[in-house]
Order: sequence, then structure tokens, then C-alpha cells
Amino acid sequence: MTELNPIISYVSKKDRLVAGLMSGTSADGVDLAITQISGNGLDMKTKVLHYQFFPYAQKLKEEILGLSCSNNSALSMISPLNFYLGEIFAEAVISGCKSAQINVSKLDLIASHGQTVYHNPEGSKILGKNIPSTIQIGESSVIASKTGVMTVSDFRPADMAAGGQGAPLVPYADFILYRDLSRSRLSLNIGGISNITYIPAAASMSEVIAFDCGPGNMVIDYMAGKFSRGKKSIDEDGKRASSGKIQKDILKTLIKHPFIKKKPPKSTGREEFGEEFAGNILKRYKKAKPDDMMATVTAFTAEAIAGNIKSFIPALPHDIILGGGGAPAFILLNLLKEKIEGVKFLTSDDFGIPLKAKEALSFAILGNETVFGYPSNVPSATGASRNAVLGKITLP
Amino acid sequence: MTELNPIISYVSKKDRLVAGLMSGTSADGVDLAITQISGNGLDMKTKVLHYQFFPYAQKLKEEILGLSCSNNSALSMISPLNFYLGEIFAEAVISGCKSAQINVSKLDLIASHGQTVYHNPEGSKILGKNIPSTIQIGESSVIASKTGVMTVSDFRPADMAAGGQGAPLVPYADFILYRDLSRSRLSLNIGGISNITYIPAAASMSEVIAFDCGPGNMVIDYMAGKFSRGKKSIDEDGKRASSGKIQKDILKTLIKHPFIKKKPPKSTGREEFGEEFAGNILKRYKKAKPDDMMATVTAFTAEAIAGNIKSFIPALPHDIILGGGGAPAFILLNLLKEKIEGVKFLTSDDFGIPLKAKEALSFAILGNETVFGYPSNVPSATGASRNAVLGKITLP
Repeated sequence: MTELNPIISYVSKKDRLVAGLMSGTSADGVDLAITQISGNGLDMKTKVLHYQFFPYAQKLKEEILGLSCSNNSALSMISPLNFYLGEIFAEAVISGCKSAQINVSKLDLIASHGQTVYHNPEGSKILGKNIPSTIQIGESSVIASKTGVMTVSDFRPADMAAGGQGAPLVPYADFILYRDLSRSRLSLNIGGISNITYIPAAASMSEVIAFDCGPGNMVIDYMAGKFSRGKKSIDEDGKRASSGKIQKDILKTLIKHPFIKKKPPKSTGREEFGEEFAGNILKRYKKAKPDDMMATVTAFTAEAIAGNIKSFIPALPHDIILGGGGAPAFILLNLLKEKIEGVKFLTSDDFGIPLKAKEALSFAILGNETVFGYPSNVPSATGASRNAVLGKITLP
Repeated sequence: MTELNPIISYVSKKDRLVAGLMSGTSADGVDLAITQISGNGLDMKTKVLHYQFFPYAQKLKEEILGLSCSNNSALSMISPLNFYLGEIFAEAVISGCKSAQINVSKLDLIASHGQTVYHNPEGSKILGKNIPSTIQIGESSVIASKTGVMTVSDFRPADMAAGGQGAPLVPYADFILYRDLSRSRLSLNIGGISNITYIPAAASMSEVIAFDCGPGNMVIDYMAGKFSRGKKSIDEDGKRASSGKIQKDILKTLIKHPFIKKKPPKSTGREEFGEEFAGNILKRYKKAKPDDMMATVTAFTAEAIAGNIKSFIPALPHDIILGGGGAPAFILLNLLKEKIEGVKFLTSDDFGIPLKAKEALSFAILGNETVFGYPSNVPSATGASRNAVLGKITLP
């Protein structure tokens, strides 16, 4: 029966078609990157064939955020939401394949990050023991069943079990995609949270430095939603931020947030920079004009990134390569250019990777390694005590 | 790198060492069956090398039951408990291997059922859609990480995704272990819940009939706990039940429970026969003497099983084979012998399978199939619309 086993046919194939699915901390939808992958480990070659974003229905977003923020998260809510999200992810793959004119049955693998609803690397006490833990939902058995495609899911727990923070995981993909013999590079990934991966020239994996800097789009998107009374969920092209004035006193206070100055390894999420954090800013500075506030939180985001680069990266890199980013990507890039001089600024597009596809591609890369039985955490980034094969394989 | 992949070395091995872990609905601990397995599918041969039960600490049991019974189940409780249970399961494997004088590194696979904390095959409404779902916890990444052994977990969601109830899953193992060319057989599995698998003589898999009958040990164990004021968790050898008198009026009422008469496919759990159900019996019949009540709920359990066999199995089998059973196994067997005549009563021991190891062995069998990419649900038992490969594979 072994010839039927999709794992064995996967590793024996030269070219594989992998759908990477990433649903970020903002809980606004799921990114799909249909990717052609050959090889594995350092020999891996990737090409994004199709990128598409599938927004969640507003009600679904509310369900997810309600689950994470409150105590109102009984098993009877979490359990069906896990299966429901599995369906949403499967439909995204099926619909994305249709747009790309790729037959779903041609996919060799789906790699799904899942929706984080809980992430606590510091740990909480249970029966007298401190237990770090994390939960990503979006049932892989539903994805594999609905699509008929082998699915890798649940990447974070294995790194945590190896003593790591379970994040960031994109650094492995950064190393595969961007390492260079003569240039040192810094990959800046902007999702809800921003994180950076520093790869010295001619580095080995263990020399990679990576960590979360603080908020990415999270605070900016929240303000955009509030100031448009829910009509918009983003500040398109950073328009409001560009026309506002940075409020230096507010900025000065925000930048004092302990996570920004905390030494890596470190990872964060909605628990620290979500609705509660952003809502408190609004409450505290209710007299600030909306556009000024947009300018200020955008500047705060840029400053948090720049500050982390300057404080915790041993030397300025030759290149800074932006990936992800959503709506405020370019205004953030411009602010960073002002703050960090003598560096070449690039985007993932310069490497043939559509800006927004970067994170979903990263999980396609991680999923590929999992099926090969190959570790893909970066212990120097997550703080894990050893390498770990990430994720769980679900067969269709 | 493919030679490192434990999946590939697993399927190419002739004999494999598989640790099956089963933690039942009673949430009282975890059963371990270290099993030697050769082949897969109908060619599979199994031998239990070591069986051991690892009871949960009382506080852990309370945490788990608290999670399932109440609304008090925030993510901040579920998430660490999932990781904590992963540690408990890993420790059970490590400790069991020590007792059996087997080096943990010799294990080829751990197959862990996990602790069910939610099971709703009927489904609940989410965003206007009816979504069946189930949750088993005991993080497989922690098990694989702590033991260094490939782990299959989370067997039920795939069957549910294929339209099934996600239960019962033991029928596949029953078919592999007990099918016979000339004798029809009924495997009776008694855990917290009781379920039966009917295998006609010379049957194919699709002719198997299997379903949950109702309570197994669940109500009996609850009463044993209450009547001993928590000093005992079981009625040892059915002593109290044997010395009590069955209260016919109470029995008559209990047996009217709609699940008992419901047509299969059907599955049940603590939601229907757990603390709430048993507690209500005690409240309603508070004048009944403890031993009489023990006799009555034991008779109720036997009657529920016998009634289901008589109503929903097309013909009485040649053999009824008991597996599992815990403390009240033999008194239940004796009661059944009175109720069902003309049948040969056997136990799994007659097939070389220690009575209590039966369920854990079953999951070792299911885990073996998963790594082979081989389906192991029985659609006629679960109501699934098709075969499904069950579970998720986590690499160490």
C-alpha cells in the first residue's frame, strides 16, 4: 500500500505544487500563495505562481477576536470555530486554484498556519507547573478532506515543545530565500506584528538573528477602523497618516512600551498590541485629531522597528528587504528610510516574491520541510534549545 | 535527506514497535499498550508486549472535567492543559518503556487518542451553519518532542470531516483482530462508554455494524466515588453491586433514556452520561440504599448493552468478546450471560490481548495505518460518507 502514501510520492517528486495559507494576528482573512517548490533544505527553489487574499466575513472576524480577547471562550465556541475555519481555508484553496487555473488535484500539499487564538510563550501555571502554550485553529482534517490534498498545519507547538517561543517562524524561509555570500541582509516582515530576520553575509543558520519588533499593521488598522466608524479596515496607502501631524509627546509615551526595548528572543501578538492596547491609546488621547493620531501610530510603528534594528542587530545590513506590509507598507518604508541611512532598501518583489505573498510563501516552505522530516525552526530566533520538525501532517 | 524521514523508515520496516495511548471519557488516566506490529491493513499482525495504566492526579482529573462540564473554559485554561497533558502522555510512554525494559528510542511510533474535552457530532450553529466538531487534547508536538518518537494523534476529526460521527473508531481494530471466516463475532468494548462491533462471518469491512450502546463504566464509577465519599473511584470487582438489590422501578426509568433506543449510527459521551446524568439519578432517588443503587446502575448498564445487541444486530453472533471493562467487567459479563443465551462469551484475553489493553492496542493499530496513508474509519459504523485516513502525524 505504500505507493499510495502521499508522503512518499511527495518526497520522490522533483517539482511540487504547494499552497501556503497564512492568517495573521489581525484576523482579517487568509493569504494564499500557490507555489512551485523543488528540492528541500538549502537546495530549495521556490516560485510563487498565484497570490490571493481571502477576507473573512466581518462576523467571522468578530467571532475570532471575541474568542481571543474575552473569557467568553467555552469549548462549545472554540470547537465548531476550529472546524468552520477549516472549511474557510479549504474554500480559499479551491477558489484560489480556480483563479489560477490550477486543478486542485494537482496540488501536492497545503501548508496552513492557522488562526492564532492564544499564544503564551511565557507560560501560565497549571497544577503548579509553568506551561508555555499556543493555539492555532482551522482544522487540518477538514482542509485535507474538502480539498483531497495532504495538509501540514500547527507549526508553532513543536518549537515551543523544544523550549522556544514558537515564534518567529518566518526566519527559516528568510534564510532559504535571501541568504547571500557577500551581502548581509535584513528581512522585515510586516503583518499585524512586525518582525525582522538578520542574515549576516555567508551566514550559517545558527548566525541568524530574528525576533518580533512590536506592532506591524495592528495598531494602524485598528485606528483606521475606529476613525472611519468601521467603514474602512485599513489606512489606504497611508493617506491619513501622510496628511496628519506626528504628536511627539504621544509618540514618546508609546515608544516606552516595555516590549519595544526588551532584549530578543522575543515574540508578541494581539495580547500586547491588540484592541485593548490601541483602545487605551484612543481613550487616553481623545483630544488628538484622527489624522494626527494616524500619523503618530504609524510613526510609532516605524520607530519601534528602527529602534529594534539599531539596538539588537550587531551591524547595519547591506540590504533591508520588506515583505508583507498591507496598506501602510510604503509609508512605513519611507519613514524607515529617514531613520536608517546607508542601507539599500528593497522589497520581496525584487526577488520575484509578491510583497503580500511573502508570509504565505514562508509557510509553503516550512510545510515542504515538514513532509521531508526536516527541521525548520531557527533556534537562535525562537530561543528553542534544539532544532525541531514543525507541524503535523494530515493525509487526505 | 529522505533517509532521515521516520515515515519512510517506518513503512519499510518489517516489525514495528508502537505505543498506543488511550485516555477515555472517564478522564481517570491513560492506558498504554506497547505493541509489536507487522504489516498493515488486512495483513496486520499485532502482539501486546506491555500494558500499563497511568492514573491522572486527582487535580488533573478535576481540571479536565471542569473544562468539559462548564462554561468556565477560556482559552487560557485549555491551551496550557493541552500542553500539560502532552507531558503526562510522554511521561507515561517513558515510564511504561522503563517498566517493560524497552528503550524509548526503539519505539517506532506513538499513537495517542488524546483526552476528549468536547464531542458534538450533531453539530452546533456557527455563523448560520451547522458544524459538527470534536476536540481531543494532549499536544502531540510535546509527546514527540519529549520522547523523540513520531506521534500520530487526533484521530476523530478526519472521520467527522468525511461526514461521520468521529466515533466509534475501535471497530476497525476489531475487524483486524477478530474477523473470522466461519464465526460471526461481536466485540464489546467497555470504557466510560460501551460500544459494540458486529462482524458477520466472512464479512467485508462494509458489513461491519458498530455503535455506542450507552454508558460503560461511567455511571457505575461515578456512584462508586460518591458512595465512598471520594475514597474509591471504582466498584472493585463489582462487590457493592453484587451485594445490592436491583431497584426495578428505577431501572425501568433509566432504561427509557432516548439514546439507548436510538437507531445507529450513534455515539455518545460524558455530555449524555456524565456527572450531570449520574448526579441527577442520585438526587432523584436519594432514598435508595447505596448498594442497591450500585446494583441498579450496573444492571442498567448491562441492560442498555443487551438491549442494543438485541435491537440493532441482525442476528445473534456466535461469539461475544469482551474488551476493556475496568472494575465492573465481570459482573457486567455475568449479567449479559443471563440476558443473552446461545452465545459463546469470550474475552480479549482469549485472543492474547490483555482485557484492559484492548482500547490502547486499537489506537496503536489505527496509528500504524495512518503512517501507511491507509484509511481506518469504518463508514458503516461512524456514518461517514467515505473512507478517511485518520489522525495527524507529528515528527520528532
